[in-house]
Amino acid sequence: MASFSARLDHAIRSKKTPALVGLDPRWDQLPSKIKASAREMYDDPAAAMAAAFEEFCVRLIDVVAPLVPAIKPQAAFFEELGPDGSVALARVIRYGRSQGLMVICDAKRGDIGTTAEAYARAYLAGEDPHAAPYGADALTVSPYLGDDTLAPFVKLCDERGAGIYVLVRTSNPGSGSFQNHTDATGLKLYEGVADVVEKLSIHSENSTSYGSIGAVVGATYPRELGELRQRMPHVPLLIPGYGAQGGNAGDVAAAFDAEGLGAIVNSSRGINFAFRSPAYAETFGEKQWEAAAEAATKAMIADLAANTPAGRLQD
Amino acid sequence: MASFSARLDHAIRSKKTPALVGLDPRWDQLPSKIKASAREMYDDPAAAMAAAFEEFCVRLIDVVAPLVPAIKPQAAFFEELGPDGSVALARVIRYGRSQGLMVICDAKRGDIGTTAEAYARAYLAGEDPHAAPYGADALTVSPYLGDDTLAPFVKLCDERGAGIYVLVRTSNPGSGSFQNHTDATGLKLYEGVADVVEKLSIHSENSTSYGSIGAVVGATYPRELGELRQRMPHVPLLIPGYGAQGGNAGDVAAAFDAEGLGAIVNSSRGINFAFRSPAYAETFGEKQWEAAAEAATKAMIADLAANTPAGRLQD
Repeated sequence: MASFSARLDHAIRSKKTPALVGLDPRWDQLPSKIKASAREMYDDPAAAMAAAFEEFCVRLIDVVAPLVPAIKPQAAFFEELGPDGSVALARVIRYGRSQGLMVICDAKRGDIGTTAEAYARAYLAGEDPHAAPYGADALTVSPYLGDDTLAPFVKLCDERGAGIYVLVRTSNPGSGSFQNHTDATGLKLYEGVADVVEKLSIHSENSTSYGSIGAVVGATYPRELGELRQRMPHVPLLIPGYGAQGGNAGDVAAAFDAEGLGAIVNSSRGINFAFRSPAYAETFGEKQWEAAAEAATKAMIADLAANTPAGRLQD
Repeated sequence: MASFSARLDHAIRSKKTPALVGLDPRWDQLPSKIKASAREMYDDPAAAMAAAFEEFCVRLIDVVAPLVPAIKPQAAFFEELGPDGSVALARVIRYGRSQGLMVICDAKRGDIGTTAEAYARAYLAGEDPHAAPYGADALTVSPYLGDDTLAPFVKLCDERGAGIYVLVRTSNPGSGSFQNHTDATGLKLYEGVADVVEKLSIHSENSTSYGSIGAVVGATYPRELGELRQRMPHVPLLIPGYGAQGGNAGDVAAAFDAEGLGAIVNSSRGINFAFRSPAYAETFGEKQWEAAAEAATKAMIADLAANTPAGRLQD
């Protein structure tokens, strides 16, 4: 069985880019035609919204599948619709995988003992997409409850060729309020979490390079990102905060090794709703929202290639 | 509109106990008759398991609704079944509320900005059970991402009379690995989180006693529990770890004020699967699993009344 890290590296090399496209279906931002046709099909508002989310994500997957190695659906937007949204999330994950994409479900789960096992079994399908109801390759996980609560996720990663990305240093303005808590030796909480993740990734498989236990580190704190890359040499990084949140390619350059591996960089809003942005609105507009998303994805790929070691992937 | 804290206090006084019953449907523990009849109804395994979870929880709600103020369904067990499980979770929450119970959905959600808003809208119905697809009164929330990520939840609590319980000091053996991270002044991470929660609860409504922003503090660390009660005088506590996890009534006594308010104490496995425990197996057995759950609930109520200030509620 191929590990998550091996499969991810293969996908990155195949597509020659570490660009990760987040799927953030937000009802008020969706193209109006998708919303209108979903409303015609379903009287029930939640069913109509879920149908619109599914159509939007499937069409976005069709746009990005030839271009990028992976997608990251955001579970919260689907959950907001209730069970109809869960159906749409499961289908979107499955469709993404059927189109050859790695799927990282961004659900930031975490709990203790057998409860954590239940979350792991819900989302971590690993190599076989049918091994879990939400058949993702990987899941984002919150570490607050403690190192023992990561173990059930790590176990399933080993068994199924799945991966997790543990929150280490997040991209939001207030991320330091707890993550920067500093002990008497100068060790910050996020560094302590990073050290645990590094150990887990070394042990998660027989690998001299990256393991399958990753870390989420925001592009919005570039100095910490560089330090964390050094601190966690075996840990694959998932980097949010590029694009709409303010991070640029220069901010994420330090996340990569000399081959351009070791990190994937996420953009969600900047691609999903590119047709609403000043850069693409005039050229494409809402009717050509897919062309706008494609152009924004290509621009991101080019930006990462030109300004980070990920350019080596295109050699 | 009545706040969460006012409604919870009313429920505690009405039922004269702070006992909280967790709903943890675990397939391998369910009474075999419930599993068999669900399997007869549905060929699809996930549909059958979801139907069994729903029946088990609904019957457990019927047992405990006359006895306790609140229930706490554990989202992970439902999510493990995929969308069928989500349907069951939404129905169980709604049924609990229809039977006059406060419902705290234990999903430990947390994310940044508008994503946190989506989670809040998914679960925090507040006073009107129909205001959210998973129509809970309150939700457990993870603080790792930072104080700014709690704000969207707090806002919805204010608007809808809902509540949250922020993870502060959890009940698992490894909870200290990150939560005990100690700064140069001696302040532990969980104390820093506690200070933020205290401020949020003071500001969450016009209240001189408890606010609607609560904290999860495990019964398994009784010294810390007592200290945290003092440190967060306006914060209602949710205390896991009683019963199956090893905490007893003496361990949780310090969580209450002189009137017996300020905390709710959870038991899940010890009540759900009382019929499997040495204390009840012989008297009741699997066929009388509901009678065993009722006896275990009454025993917990009596234990809390005899050994904590919650006994005052029965005066």
